[in-house]
Amino acid sequence: MHGPGDVRVEEVPLPSLVEPTDAIIRLDATCICGSDLWPYRGIQPIKRPIRMGHEYIGTVEQVGAEVRDLAVGDFVVGSFMASDGTCEICRAGYQSRCIHVVGMGSVGTQAEYARVPWADGTLVKVTGDLTPGRRRSLLAASDVLGTGWFAAVAAEAGPGKTVAVVGDGAVGLCGILAARQLGAERIIAMSRHADRQQLARRFGATDIVEERGDAGVERIKELTGGYGAHSTIEAVGTQESMQQALRATRAGGHVGFVGVSHDVTIDGRELFYSGVHLHGGPAPVRRWLPDLVEAIMSDAIAPGVVFDLTLPLDEAAEGYRAMDERRATKVLLEF
Amino acid sequence: MHGPGDVRVEEVPLPSLVEPTDAIIRLDATCICGSDLWPYRGIQPIKRPIRMGHEYIGTVEQVGAEVRDLAVGDFVVGSFMASDGTCEICRAGYQSRCIHVVGMGSVGTQAEYARVPWADGTLVKVTGDLTPGRRRSLLAASDVLGTGWFAAVAAEAGPGKTVAVVGDGAVGLCGILAARQLGAERIIAMSRHADRQQLARRFGATDIVEERGDAGVERIKELTGGYGAHSTIEAVGTQESMQQALRATRAGGHVGFVGVSHDVTIDGRELFYSGVHLHGGPAPVRRWLPDLVEAIMSDAIAPGVVFDLTLPLDEAAEGYRAMDERRATKVLLEF
Repeated sequence: MHGPGDVRVEEVPLPSLVEPTDAIIRLDATCICGSDLWPYRGIQPIKRPIRMGHEYIGTVEQVGAEVRDLAVGDFVVGSFMASDGTCEICRAGYQSRCIHVVGMGSVGTQAEYARVPWADGTLVKVTGDLTPGRRRSLLAASDVLGTGWFAAVAAEAGPGKTVAVVGDGAVGLCGILAARQLGAERIIAMSRHADRQQLARRFGATDIVEERGDAGVERIKELTGGYGAHSTIEAVGTQESMQQALRATRAGGHVGFVGVSHDVTIDGRELFYSGVHLHGGPAPVRRWLPDLVEAIMSDAIAPGVVFDLTLPLDEAAEGYRAMDERRATKVLLEF
Repeated sequence: MHGPGDVRVEEVPLPSLVEPTDAIIRLDATCICGSDLWPYRGIQPIKRPIRMGHEYIGTVEQVGAEVRDLAVGDFVVGSFMASDGTCEICRAGYQSRCIHVVGMGSVGTQAEYARVPWADGTLVKVTGDLTPGRRRSLLAASDVLGTGWFAAVAAEAGPGKTVAVVGDGAVGLCGILAARQLGAERIIAMSRHADRQQLARRFGATDIVEERGDAGVERIKELTGGYGAHSTIEAVGTQESMQQALRATRAGGHVGFVGVSHDVTIDGRELFYSGVHLHGGPAPVRRWLPDLVEAIMSDAIAPGVVFDLTLPLDEAAEGYRAMDERRATKVLLEF
């Protein structure tokens, strides 16, 4: 990305092993993330051209001398955050905040090859029949599914719970899928786009709320006996969406927030009197990745349907445009 | 309180039953809360003279027709927030956010008699030998102990955990006691007052950090292998204390905040990347009150030692001065 709205596909040198814990993968597919739109729209300024992309599936081409769990030829999926897998933070399940964390965005996986730091702590080997549908779902697991899953866990979605979901992008939709898998009783999707409403229902939403802001909050309260949701997923990252999530949640309830917060400030007094639990951040996708791979490879879940536009990597610029203009929910790039 | 710094003891009409769920109690003792200092210092402005006080122990004098669990003559302790005990929020353990909540501060328990709304949902009957020490501890249970307990639970203090405590007032000290009772392995008290440090150690603190702000955060990190505390109790309610709490906590850790937030704003981006869990608010003291009463009456805990100045109610103004000038940690008022 050379600047806002300026995405180019260029030839760069092949990556090579730097650390003995690295692996080099040849990508099978990659995709464009909602968070890639922040610099594309100029909201998150960039000072120089940067490589883009942090989602990936592919085949191991090379491994460093200290990589133990992976071998050349393995088909893998990994988190959008590379993690050593051994520090106290990783062992507690917060791999995305590993003390040696490397954001895969700094590597740039919208490319044919990528270096994956901390290969053992980051990648998960996939075995079984790689149908096209499963491949797409595995790619979704790299970020949007894992992020939606984290949001649902952070919101403590589960049996007997009413879950509200703010945001109908790929992450919000995957949050619905996760809440459903976690056994939530009722799932209220906040969406005003017919196609996304349809996908929300397919993933498990039981109710749709089209209103936003205070009106949206009122509607959630009406649907929950005046109390508000037990669990709310915030998957946008704006001031309005965060307030909506906090206010739609009952006292003692949980807000899981995974939209990258931009210009969000939370009023301490409002949070104090809300009585909600607030937890979020970059999702520790790696915590659930082995289970998510298994669920995908047994066809228990099929999050890959969030990809509604597939383009060759050469047409990445068109992919960004389509997402920016909301012509596509999520764009898959292939080779 | 007639205005900042202006506390007077005046004769007012005796309270009477208003709702059939009310009780009238004759107070045995009451006390001054750190939160009472906000209007005393003019930080929380008042428009007209207000009654003060929300902590209390006493004897039931009258009960409304619908009160079932209490009788005239019962010795009781209650939460600083009256709650119906039956709504979904109460049943989920968040009585302080009950849909029919009445703050006892609006009643004003720095008085000889008080009306307690929702008596069954608010009060807990005490049986056994009421020694002076136990009476003081029961009074502490009404707010500071219950609030410290909530903070420790919200911070998920427990076995194997390192707990940092920001604030060495009565609530912070009770948070230390709670963390100890909940089995925390290590408890770091942040305090620079020798007398409070001593009480902190008596309640279970294993380490004392005198530094504040960034230096305090650095010291906590040094003491925890660079990671930060697993659990942090925020018991002050200022911007500095909240930031200190958030920054002293490791990713995936928990911050329990119970200092009433004044002018606190939390940066969404910082919270996002911190990866901590944040939960707090007015403590649902009633959730633990039966257990706390039992612990006090069996001498398992003795939080009443936080009272370091006892005055007759008539000298309430001096009590406020003593707390404002930090000559006293917590003032008990008796009759």
